[in-house]
Amino acid sequence: MDAVLGGLRAEARTIDQYMQEDLARLEPAMDARLLEVLNYGLFNGGKRVRPLLAMFASRLCGNTDREVYKLGCAFEYLHAATLFHDDIIDNSETRRGKQSVFKKFGITAAILAGDFLHALAMATVGELAGVEGLRIFCNATTGMVDGEFMQLRNAERHNLSELDYNDAIMGKTGLLIAAACEIGAVYGRGSAQQVAALREYGVSLGCAFQIVDDLLDYLGDPVKTGKTTGNDLVEGKITLPLILTMNAAREGDKARLLSILADKSERIAHFPEVCALVAKYDGFAAARKRAETAVANAVRSLTLFTGQDVLHERTLLEGLAGYVLAREK
Amino acid sequence: MDAVLGGLRAEARTIDQYMQEDLARLEPAMDARLLEVLNYGLFNGGKRVRPLLAMFASRLCGNTDREVYKLGCAFEYLHAATLFHDDIIDNSETRRGKQSVFKKFGITAAILAGDFLHALAMATVGELAGVEGLRIFCNATTGMVDGEFMQLRNAERHNLSELDYNDAIMGKTGLLIAAACEIGAVYGRGSAQQVAALREYGVSLGCAFQIVDDLLDYLGDPVKTGKTTGNDLVEGKITLPLILTMNAAREGDKARLLSILADKSERIAHFPEVCALVAKYDGFAAARKRAETAVANAVRSLTLFTGQDVLHERTLLEGLAGYVLAREK
Repeated sequence: MDAVLGGLRAEARTIDQYMQEDLARLEPAMDARLLEVLNYGLFNGGKRVRPLLAMFASRLCGNTDREVYKLGCAFEYLHAATLFHDDIIDNSETRRGKQSVFKKFGITAAILAGDFLHALAMATVGELAGVEGLRIFCNATTGMVDGEFMQLRNAERHNLSELDYNDAIMGKTGLLIAAACEIGAVYGRGSAQQVAALREYGVSLGCAFQIVDDLLDYLGDPVKTGKTTGNDLVEGKITLPLILTMNAAREGDKARLLSILADKSERIAHFPEVCALVAKYDGFAAARKRAETAVANAVRSLTLFTGQDVLHERTLLEGLAGYVLAREK
Repeated sequence: MDAVLGGLRAEARTIDQYMQEDLARLEPAMDARLLEVLNYGLFNGGKRVRPLLAMFASRLCGNTDREVYKLGCAFEYLHAATLFHDDIIDNSETRRGKQSVFKKFGITAAILAGDFLHALAMATVGELAGVEGLRIFCNATTGMVDGEFMQLRNAERHNLSELDYNDAIMGKTGLLIAAACEIGAVYGRGSAQQVAALREYGVSLGCAFQIVDDLLDYLGDPVKTGKTTGNDLVEGKITLPLILTMNAAREGDKARLLSILADKSERIAHFPEVCALVAKYDGFAAARKRAETAVANAVRSLTLFTGQDVLHERTLLEGLAGYVLAREK
């Protein structure tokens, strides 16, 4: 695992270099403040998961060029753009332990810099992955927006089904991760079967990623994650551990959970009680099981790639899937 | 002029039909609230200037297909996306006499629906005008953002030059109008010379359009424009009439204007006095002269198109340029 992580970190640093070069290229025609906002918002210790996925997917299909790093940047640009805008929407003070772009530079800068990165991302994908790549990328973007509207609609609904949850995490995480894998494969001139397999890998990986994220919100170590636990409960966000608990719980316990959720000001005080109820019905273990199944699906999608020449890339993507389960932050 | 306007209005209605069809196509996969926001924000009596420009530019280069209406829609989508976001930034209550999207549906919906239209616009241009069209479109978008940052930087500078002003109006209006003309020409498979001429037409037209807009902010009839006069002065926005007046004014008058501008709370009370000073130095007439020159440049760019088969389109584009000068709202 350590060798895999080391390899991923080295590639992530190369992605950062390409982003730096891209900004340097744009700098002469760019307002200094805009550049400052982009530098602040883009280089914040992100793991560059989406760029890495696009790159490895492309290599797995046989591509060996270095332009793929530029393609990778597009996914970080779009990801950052959505974070800039989401932090306004959620009124988030911090992001990765630093002030959010919105808090540091104001709402105007956060909206506009997000729009800038949005356009830069689209231009990059269009240039490198052509109209087919752009179509996938834009569909992921509109799908993400649609998912956010769905979340707004469900914001104060506490009887969500596992199906609702799956829809929500696709919009939040799965679509962009799947698009990174699929577009990487398109860029690498993969066959239709290869493109579909890598998309499938991305969908499964994205779901696992978000389930683990939601588990960390209950069980994470704040020292490692950099954020307190219980945020989802406080905001009334019903995630998989709670859904599975409600499905399994006896009437009395279910009613108790719903009554805690119903009173917004009470939620934080009852976080330990909610955790105990979820643990009682094995909600955490069951959610983790779902993540493991998704990771297993992701890894199985890669069995199509049997060539010795791409064994390294396949191993890295398998390692990335394993890392999603192992991560503590 | 009336025949031209009638022809334009009929084409604008067809654009509206294509946008309706586009939304109907997307509806099955779209949250109902998102659809409501898009319907509200897109169909608000807009004149569809940008779509019309893209269409006529394309036809002027010899294109005769009806897909060009779809291409036109992309410019209205991007335009609407920028308005959704700008109304948040400017905290605007109204837009075309109705509540702004931001005021009616909230900041979250306005940000997200703007992002949705942004992606839809990019996908449409990529699909129809290819990677070259997309590159122009994205450059216009990033340039518009850059222009807004520049405006923020200049927000409380009252000694702007005519050059600063020209930069600002390019970002605000010129870039997207020029992109509509240029991409229309690319879509219509125009020669490099034709593409350049139509871009030039767009740049000049965009400048004239914005100068007239800024004149209407001083001299418009609120009944016709649907908004009060003096907004730019109140917000401390230094537009062409004021710049030309400052350039021409005697020291005492210039100092008086700067002292009025320096005290934000005093500006509205002194609007009549500012108007009188601008009139004294022929600032309105000089600004109008600039708009007329820009329109003449725009019309001159069209002289490249001599074919009898495109005489109608050329006449419409000339008419549109004339309309920019004649418009009262």
